Amino acid sequence: VDELSSRLARVVGPDQVITDRAVLAGYETDWTGRFAGRARLVVRPADRDEVAGVLLVCRDARVAVVPQGGNTGLVGGGVPRDGEVVLSLRRLDRLGPVDPIAGQVTVGAGATLAAVRRHAAAAGLDFGVDLAARESATIGGMVNTNAGGIRVLRWGSMRAQVVGAEAVLTDGRVLRRLAGLPKDSTGYDLVGTLVGSEGTLAVLTAVRLRLVPRPRRQVTATLAVADTVAAQRVLASVRAGVPGLTSAEIFYADGLRIVCDTQSIAPPFRTSYTTYLLVDFGAEDDPTPALAAALASRDDVLDSAIATDEAARRTLWAHRDGHTEAVNTLGVPLKLDVGVPAPALAEFEHELRAIVEVAGARLVLFGHLAEGNFHANVIGAHDPDTLTDAVMRAVARYGGTISAEHGVGVAKARWLPLVRSPVELELMAATKRAWDPDGLLNPGVLLPR
Amino acid sequence: VDELSSRLARVVGPDQVITDRAVLAGYETDWTGRFAGRARLVVRPADRDEVAGVLLVCRDARVAVVPQGGNTGLVGGGVPRDGEVVLSLRRLDRLGPVDPIAGQVTVGAGATLAAVRRHAAAAGLDFGVDLAARESATIGGMVNTNAGGIRVLRWGSMRAQVVGAEAVLTDGRVLRRLAGLPKDSTGYDLVGTLVGSEGTLAVLTAVRLRLVPRPRRQVTATLAVADTVAAQRVLASVRAGVPGLTSAEIFYADGLRIVCDTQSIAPPFRTSYTTYLLVDFGAEDDPTPALAAALASRDDVLDSAIATDEAARRTLWAHRDGHTEAVNTLGVPLKLDVGVPAPALAEFEHELRAIVEVAGARLVLFGHLAEGNFHANVIGAHDPDTLTDAVMRAVARYGGTISAEHGVGVAKARWLPLVRSPVELELMAATKRAWDPDGLLNPGVLLPR
Repeated sequence: VDELSSRLARVVGPDQVITDRAVLAGYETDWTGRFAGRARLVVRPADRDEVAGVLLVCRDARVAVVPQGGNTGLVGGGVPRDGEVVLSLRRLDRLGPVDPIAGQVTVGAGATLAAVRRHAAAAGLDFGVDLAARESATIGGMVNTNAGGIRVLRWGSMRAQVVGAEAVLTDGRVLRRLAGLPKDSTGYDLVGTLVGSEGTLAVLTAVRLRLVPRPRRQVTATLAVADTVAAQRVLASVRAGVPGLTSAEIFYADGLRIVCDTQSIAPPFRTSYTTYLLVDFGAEDDPTPALAAALASRDDVLDSAIATDEAARRTLWAHRDGHTEAVNTLGVPLKLDVGVPAPALAEFEHELRAIVEVAGARLVLFGHLAEGNFHANVIGAHDPDTLTDAVMRAVARYGGTISAEHGVGVAKARWLPLVRSPVELELMAATKRAWDPDGLLNPGVLLPR
Repeated sequence: VDELSSRLARVVGPDQVITDRAVLAGYETDWTGRFAGRARLVVRPADRDEVAGVLLVCRDARVAVVPQGGNTGLVGGGVPRDGEVVLSLRRLDRLGPVDPIAGQVTVGAGATLAAVRRHAAAAGLDFGVDLAARESATIGGMVNTNAGGIRVLRWGSMRAQVVGAEAVLTDGRVLRRLAGLPKDSTGYDLVGTLVGSEGTLAVLTAVRLRLVPRPRRQVTATLAVADTVAAQRVLASVRAGVPGLTSAEIFYADGLRIVCDTQSIAPPFRTSYTTYLLVDFGAEDDPTPALAAALASRDDVLDSAIATDEAARRTLWAHRDGHTEAVNTLGVPLKLDVGVPAPALAEFEHELRAIVEVAGARLVLFGHLAEGNFHANVIGAHDPDTLTDAVMRAVARYGGTISAEHGVGVAKARWLPLVRSPVELELMAATKRAWDPDGLLNPGVLLPR
């Protein structure tokens, strides 16, 4: 037992300082298997004061710290690179009482998305962001990546849900703004600065979240269309004509086939189509009649399956939700989470497919149509860096983003200058110095070293 | 003509450098008449490049700059204090094309709120924030104060409307993020940092705004109730039962009397009541039946006036909108724009009334009920600072904010430590240094000197 371990043990108790290499493994490799590194140790504080104590010890010892939530990140932003201390926030999972008047709740950074959603549901409310990793992803991690997911078109990304935060700086001082006042104009938005900061500025310990109404009626439809442009056209019409649109997901024939094959589920239609648009609605009154009316007159909707009861809705969603797991059966995918402006989406798609084909790799594509956010999963790329470089450059050329919702992490730090100008990078570096002057938090993540 | 004037004239043309003291006056005093100072000169650039040129000249000459929009600010944040250059953004009033798919528009910082609303309306859309000074207030000024207004409960404050921005740093470099991508997770939210920064970090030149749907049907109701607690109770019930609630404004007998007397308009009811709640709805389907149903069973609604056509709605709104002008007929008011958490509002109101009464002054109170945001207008305060101090301390004690929507300006800078902790103030100062290392932008505003 070295001195750092003993000092940390005095803060969090000896059981919460992990140095056993077998146990460390679960904290050292990310969910994709692409990003892994050695941790000096893992420390699991129980509350904010212990987080402050841990940070003071690490600062004193000049040891870098990697904050970690549910370890569902996909860009290497939450796993160690080079002997850092991994600070796991999972034990900070307290769920405060739901305030029904304000429609808000304060939760610990380590609370999972699923736990927060269940907690809100018990009070007749819901949380605006949802994503497939809900059982493991923590709210703290989701704030740090400004996570998006499948409902951004209705409720916005994490940035729109965060109305307050508590965080600890590397010197142990605590920033605490949890009142969640709906109107407040008293200076710079420090809480907002933490959203999307990828653990590089401070260690988030609690978040105050806005909650959203739970719709009484929900309906899901899978629509077969000819291509991405047709899907966009159908989406625009459905969006204008049917109240309560919450999700608009796109996927394609090859992805659906792998999902159905590997998970032994039936496809939505007997016939196979090239492109599928899944739309989901939630409203006070049943959106089905309006949806049926919007679809009836369209000859670009080649087939449709509409589900209103929970089990049938889940069956339709399984085709989309199954993609991530299905892709993983083919090997460790290169995951590129990119976004381009809607008018450029179809053209970008063709270029993307061409880049992957030329590289002799396989592309499984799906995404969030309304935000122009594609998840390009590439399997069998011989030279992932060159391929990534080509895709990132294409994205930048179309005025898009190299990361729509996963964050930059270590995976994309070198491409950040494609979408952030020198003045922006300089202001970001100055922001980093202001919050973390010793550069101890998550070095190598987000900002190029 | 001094050297600074000549150099600026070379950037913007001689007509746009104002040194005539009579003309300067309109830029030197704020709307309330409480805040005024001498400007060295006023410079009116036409576009972003001229703004950059002006800033470079001022930096070179080590002259401080006060950015100014429509000069409708209420906290002295947009008028000179001590011989600064006033940089008027009013000429940057370009309105870009409305993007109907994204529901966004890019506008110059000098565009007025009214112009943006008309522009959006022409495309079948609306802008989420509205406030009484709409004909003069500029979008740039509204972003800089994180303005709120009368629809925050539905669409949020300015922070929720800003999806991109262009701003010039004091060294002439341009920060430009105007794509408005709905999902983007590529580092610190520099655009968000500018919202509410009160002209202290950079000079905003353009903003990309999200637009909101224009409701087909609108209805306004004025409800007489016994007191603030009753108004909150009625609001909660109406909010739960009637779709499309957009505004919830509260005012009181004495304020209404001054409005009706000074503006020669009729009150909403023959009988005079103590407390009035104005609620406004906008939806696809007429909210009136649901509203009538929600009110029918309530014995705490003492009287009600419901208006659905435009003229009748305007008549009801006039009672609330007229307050600001009516108060001004009584003298130069001390304006305190405060917010407290909803459960504390009634208790705070009593304390506020007591503080003003003890000071021998007159209080005209109105505000935005859903956000607990009171506008306390105090007339005849012999010692405004002592009175302000007492109110600010009460606000802080209730966990509220010393500025809900007007900003801190010079008016409240000394009270900022009541609601921002030492670590927050230090992070704010570090943020200021990162963006404006020479401290040339709006010195004395927001951060205590």
